[in-house]
Amino acid sequence: MTKKVSTEAYKGVRDFYPADMAVQNYIFKVMKETVESFGYSEYGASVLEPSDLYKAKSGEEIVNEQTYTFKDKGDREVSLRPEMTPTVARMIAGKLKEFSMPLRWYSIPNLFRYENPQRGRMREHWQLNVDIFGVKSIEAEVEVISIASQVLKNFGLKDENFEIRINSRKIINYILNDIFALDDETAEKVSKLIDKKDKLKDGAFEEAIRETIAERSSEFLTLISSKNFEEFVSRLPQTASENEGIKEIKKLISRLEEVGITNAVFSQNLMRGFDYYTGIVFEVYDTNPDNRRSVFGGGRYDDLLDIFDKEKVPAFGFGAGDVIIRDILETYGLMPKFPAPADIYICVMNENSIGFAQDLAQLLREKKVRTSVDFSFRKVGDQIKYADKNKIPFIICIGDEEVTSGKFKVKNLTTGEQTEFSDSEINEISKLL
Amino acid sequence: MTKKVSTEAYKGVRDFYPADMAVQNYIFKVMKETVESFGYSEYGASVLEPSDLYKAKSGEEIVNEQTYTFKDKGDREVSLRPEMTPTVARMIAGKLKEFSMPLRWYSIPNLFRYENPQRGRMREHWQLNVDIFGVKSIEAEVEVISIASQVLKNFGLKDENFEIRINSRKIINYILNDIFALDDETAEKVSKLIDKKDKLKDGAFEEAIRETIAERSSEFLTLISSKNFEEFVSRLPQTASENEGIKEIKKLISRLEEVGITNAVFSQNLMRGFDYYTGIVFEVYDTNPDNRRSVFGGGRYDDLLDIFDKEKVPAFGFGAGDVIIRDILETYGLMPKFPAPADIYICVMNENSIGFAQDLAQLLREKKVRTSVDFSFRKVGDQIKYADKNKIPFIICIGDEEVTSGKFKVKNLTTGEQTEFSDSEINEISKLL
Repeated sequence: MTKKVSTEAYKGVRDFYPADMAVQNYIFKVMKETVESFGYSEYGASVLEPSDLYKAKSGEEIVNEQTYTFKDKGDREVSLRPEMTPTVARMIAGKLKEFSMPLRWYSIPNLFRYENPQRGRMREHWQLNVDIFGVKSIEAEVEVISIASQVLKNFGLKDENFEIRINSRKIINYILNDIFALDDETAEKVSKLIDKKDKLKDGAFEEAIRETIAERSSEFLTLISSKNFEEFVSRLPQTASENEGIKEIKKLISRLEEVGITNAVFSQNLMRGFDYYTGIVFEVYDTNPDNRRSVFGGGRYDDLLDIFDKEKVPAFGFGAGDVIIRDILETYGLMPKFPAPADIYICVMNENSIGFAQDLAQLLREKKVRTSVDFSFRKVGDQIKYADKNKIPFIICIGDEEVTSGKFKVKNLTTGEQTEFSDSEINEISKLL
Repeated sequence: MTKKVSTEAYKGVRDFYPADMAVQNYIFKVMKETVESFGYSEYGASVLEPSDLYKAKSGEEIVNEQTYTFKDKGDREVSLRPEMTPTVARMIAGKLKEFSMPLRWYSIPNLFRYENPQRGRMREHWQLNVDIFGVKSIEAEVEVISIASQVLKNFGLKDENFEIRINSRKIINYILNDIFALDDETAEKVSKLIDKKDKLKDGAFEEAIRETIAERSSEFLTLISSKNFEEFVSRLPQTASENEGIKEIKKLISRLEEVGITNAVFSQNLMRGFDYYTGIVFEVYDTNPDNRRSVFGGGRYDDLLDIFDKEKVPAFGFGAGDVIIRDILETYGLMPKFPAPADIYICVMNENSIGFAQDLAQLLREKKVRTSVDFSFRKVGDQIKYADKNKIPFIICIGDEEVTSGKFKVKNLTTGEQTEFSDSEINEISKLL
């Protein structure tokens, strides 16, 4: 009669069966606990946003080609949010007068990008967003980068597993506009080339740079290939030491060392895609030699509230996606064990015993023991097999004998050990688990 | 230069500022803990679903007029899910061979409805979905209705604050098709009238019934106005006692009493909107005389997997929305207190003290003490005022003296009490909180 419906999820999004949901919940839990330990408060918003929100400041490419945007029945243009920063800026701009700065906020929203799904990039992913608002000083960077580092450490990563690359939009602008005096269009083109450098095949970057800024291209390429901050600065004019971007990087790296972060390095090649960054940008890289890759990153965006016609609020933050975090956990053998859905499974021998079993289950639940009752009345061996398959660690079998005596045995399915209790001893049972 | 952007959220959806997010998190926490105590596992899926999923079995009105549906760039028709049941049915149908029944699953998805926002009904809301799959017997109803009741009790509601109304699609069909022998179209019309009964003005229901089933309308109206199950059954033919729906209701109410649920009543007027229900349906009502209203509900849907061309899997479940739960908590004075974003706020006197302060903060965080550091170097009074405004209960002030001596005081902002510690005594501090 009706056409049969496919059981496939929509292209590029994921179904979370309980085993996957448990991993997702573990990832969110570590993120939340870490961020909250620094005194950050959670906020949230709808995945539906007016499209105007993205037109003002995101990269043009992102809004036009990469978002889910449609018209509602009231002819309003709406988008599925592709990133969270415009939303949090909107929320803060909307209640600016009610807040006393600084604000330490975080969220773990789902985000949509309209692109062809590939490893590590889905059409929908979740992303931890951590932002501090109202702090101009470099201490904002120190704190937020500390959080970024601590999140990875709390997942079990070691300092040597990742590297925090740091750059400043101020340095990029200084190089392109002041030192090389490029016009806006050429500067934009060169920025894009630097951003894509690691993805280009050998020599392609150099060739493109020679085509774009013919005259001083070898000077530029030498500068860009500097091995570290000292070498980079030594290749700049002496006055560079007065450049604000240069001074900030120097201070930031030294302050990060003071708070125990020793894997932060300057990287003149670090661009980050969004148009709204105004100062320090950073990106965390996996140092695994088989798979060097960007894990996540962020930056300073002091001008974003401008789009709402509000006073500027300095802001620094990052976003860390769930897909790559899960991938990293797999790579480093840090995946959590699948949690059992219950602590105790009560097998029931016959219909007369179901009342006793349910009362017992209720008593256990009141003591925070997660308890399921089998009411299939199938063979007890099949009931136990079900508990075992679902990795439930303990069982209790209830039949006529148990109902009459009020006594029952709690059996550990791993060791086979059994201990007898009555229902006045529920507290003792929870100690077994 | 750029057009200024509005700070308003999209129509009918909510921004969750930290105070609202804390309430939302509290609601989700109580839901999760309750459901998990019964051994249910969490699953999840994307809010984007192929529109076909809803065309097969949801009420026609829901798909055509009330969903957000649009075409993606690949010309696929996609919807923002208006309900979770088709999604969970799709997921189970897709991996049916891998599972051993029963499955106890829950989720707290966001759902979208395209309708004009009004009190208690938003365009986006979150909904706890609890379902058991693979159980034909009434024990599925007993367990899931127990969970529904326990969720409300764990929010602090008393038995007398709510009533669980129960009906069966089998009884409705028996009345309309067998007793009154209505044709399908008239039966459908009468079902809709019963569903809307409480929302119609006095006498309108009776008038509409008289128009629709002229001849036997008074007999019908008498039956429909029965005050309880016994009266209802007494007005049916004697053979009604053999009707499966009647037998099920009888058994269910008695089984619910056995597990301690005494506020369940039969209600011949209970319909529930979705087309896919096949047996028992229930709805929880707020008994507050100022605001009698449906809180949430669910039912049995044994045929839903049919739309995927799979074998049938018996299923029973409910969905409970966040908006009305929050409203109920407010009505009954059960709202949670706003949680402080941190346990301790460290005030910093000068730039020389920031290193000590940050090291101390890090030690505290390792002991699970949520700690924020003030790095504004503003007047200490203003730093304390900030902590107080944010309801952070304890402060530590760090200046030259503390850095030199290595000793510092933890001050309780409510009592004014101060206790001195050194940083080797961090464990002692966590005991203070």
